[in-house]
Amino acid sequence: MNKEKFWYELIHECKQTGARYGVLHTPHGDVETPIFMPVGTLATVKFLSPDELKTIGSGVILSNTYHLWIRPGADVIEAAGGLHHFMNYDGPILTDSGGFQVFSLSKNRKIYEEGVHFRNHLNGDALFLSPEKSIEVQNQLGADIIMSFDECPPYPASHEYMKDSIERTLRWAKRGKEAHANADKQALFGIVQGGEFEDLRAYSAQETVKLDFSGYSIGGTSVGESKEVMYKMIDYSIKYLPSDKPRYLMGVGSTDALLEGVLRGVDMFDCVLPTRIARHGTLMTSEGRINISNQKYERDYAPLDKECDCITCKNYSRAYLRHLFKCNEGLGLRLASIHNLRFLIRLMEDVRKAIREDRFLDFKNNFFKKYSLNSTDSRGF
Amino acid sequence: MNKEKFWYELIHECKQTGARYGVLHTPHGDVETPIFMPVGTLATVKFLSPDELKTIGSGVILSNTYHLWIRPGADVIEAAGGLHHFMNYDGPILTDSGGFQVFSLSKNRKIYEEGVHFRNHLNGDALFLSPEKSIEVQNQLGADIIMSFDECPPYPASHEYMKDSIERTLRWAKRGKEAHANADKQALFGIVQGGEFEDLRAYSAQETVKLDFSGYSIGGTSVGESKEVMYKMIDYSIKYLPSDKPRYLMGVGSTDALLEGVLRGVDMFDCVLPTRIARHGTLMTSEGRINISNQKYERDYAPLDKECDCITCKNYSRAYLRHLFKCNEGLGLRLASIHNLRFLIRLMEDVRKAIREDRFLDFKNNFFKKYSLNSTDSRGF
Repeated sequence: MNKEKFWYELIHECKQTGARYGVLHTPHGDVETPIFMPVGTLATVKFLSPDELKTIGSGVILSNTYHLWIRPGADVIEAAGGLHHFMNYDGPILTDSGGFQVFSLSKNRKIYEEGVHFRNHLNGDALFLSPEKSIEVQNQLGADIIMSFDECPPYPASHEYMKDSIERTLRWAKRGKEAHANADKQALFGIVQGGEFEDLRAYSAQETVKLDFSGYSIGGTSVGESKEVMYKMIDYSIKYLPSDKPRYLMGVGSTDALLEGVLRGVDMFDCVLPTRIARHGTLMTSEGRINISNQKYERDYAPLDKECDCITCKNYSRAYLRHLFKCNEGLGLRLASIHNLRFLIRLMEDVRKAIREDRFLDFKNNFFKKYSLNSTDSRGF
Repeated sequence: MNKEKFWYELIHECKQTGARYGVLHTPHGDVETPIFMPVGTLATVKFLSPDELKTIGSGVILSNTYHLWIRPGADVIEAAGGLHHFMNYDGPILTDSGGFQVFSLSKNRKIYEEGVHFRNHLNGDALFLSPEKSIEVQNQLGADIIMSFDECPPYPASHEYMKDSIERTLRWAKRGKEAHANADKQALFGIVQGGEFEDLRAYSAQETVKLDFSGYSIGGTSVGESKEVMYKMIDYSIKYLPSDKPRYLMGVGSTDALLEGVLRGVDMFDCVLPTRIARHGTLMTSEGRINISNQKYERDYAPLDKECDCITCKNYSRAYLRHLFKCNEGLGLRLASIHNLRFLIRLMEDVRKAIREDRFLDFKNNFFKKYSLNSTDSRGF
């Protein structure tokens, strides 16, 4: 890809840790990293407008190729002028490959060298996704950053299974790269797999890097493994990734895992967690997670989080939010989603500042201490 | 009430019709009339933020006393500093008396001189609402405009039943007025009842006016009667209402009924209709009502309504709105609600202009012609 359109600029490496501060230059603007990316599965971050996303500092948002391929269809979005036009978001967008959804949502999947036969999770229709098809759909969607189609193997998987899987994923990565029709406009990332096996992560990372992608994702995480294992998966992979390319840890959004990822040199994260738990009334605050439906907030007229600058915290009380949740009012889901996203985005702002000031290890340790987190078995705040 | 805080200023009477242009001065700002008031039943206009309401020109919004009394409770809102603070809306707010909900939602209601015994529609708990209690709750909520507690009689009802009912409603109006504790801050309206009976409407109107309220509502409409009958109900009542006080037709929100009401001298309207149908994908446009979920909009990249200035029409396509509705995405409900409210608010802006220019009859006739409406049996656009 044309370096003027997409490139990662490494600006500062923390002297205390492997954490990096940089800027991701994209066709739809520059964003600072490390970054947390809100998820807008169906071309909408649930309940939020593009303006609200901008206001909370969203940077890059993510949409899901599999979901959009099924509804409304890639051709409908392509004819709209692409995803940016379709959903009226003019900032950077990232699409995944569909690989994760094929393996997490679909039934009766059969993996062949050519691709994967599976069933539509909504109506059971037969579907087929291949590396070429995934890239074709992502070309139609037109996101700034797109992903190679990979197999997301079950966890745990045997060494033998995983070895075959990463070999196939490498062949798929190569095929997808060759099929990529918009290399001048869309940055294609390769995905490192290999489960919890150190040798396979090393092999997968080294071979994927040889294919020369615009960035590298660490996949196969958040599939049921412990956090301790997840951090090993990062360690085993990231040391082989080039420092001049962005590194993306897929599907991770709890505060402890974000900080552990940053510590190891990860630049990009995404997760449905903040918005999903928000819709259940679970809110991330400077006092830890709270459930706003709790009786004790009935007459609590304080802001949700005194330390937060989001429109929810600046304009509404805990009592009002509780009322909205107790009455199943949509505004509650909206205000809660805004808050949780802003909480993580603000955390990453603090993270970037700490990296630039060479004190990220202190920052991380203080955060873990404040919320009684640890690196092996946190309660996932 | 202190005239400086709440008063109706009649500015112009249309030379073609009985339509009036005026300004309602309230403690939370001035609004031009005739006005359509969005309904925020539970201290939230579903899915919308106060900022969005302001942007669409909401003027006055309405909340429901019965619903708020039950959830979260009037004391919770009072302790927040009243409804304006609780929901973060600093424009004028109107609350109804609870009378309509008692009669439309509640079971096992028994009407006594003292008040009404009935059941909570959510959990069946025994409840009692009286004129004094309704006003007390509305005093706690603190809206700018509050309503007398009335009986909303069944339709049809016999002349005998209705006569007894309006006599009791008059006694209740007097009791409520005496119980009103915030007369310096909240304007209390009387409610004219009397069903479709000309003599009873006349009697109810004249006797209610004798009690000297800050404004007058025409109640007992939108209870199953035909539009022809509803217009008669207005005619029978409105001629007895003083021209220096605002007139409010309760629960009316279809375009034809709004224009027929304005024609007869009504100043204020409210209805859940625009937001309720919006949430089902039914959108009011300059081409009439459309259902956005229809297949034919799948690749329709035009704005919802080319003549509309709302953020939905300025930023999103029919294809995107259809996609959101097909996927049950909350942003769809939100964008549809914004549009329908803006449609009616914009209609009322045009109405006010037509009145000031003494061409409201032409305006109304052109509108009815354009959408094939008539005054007796319209399809309710």
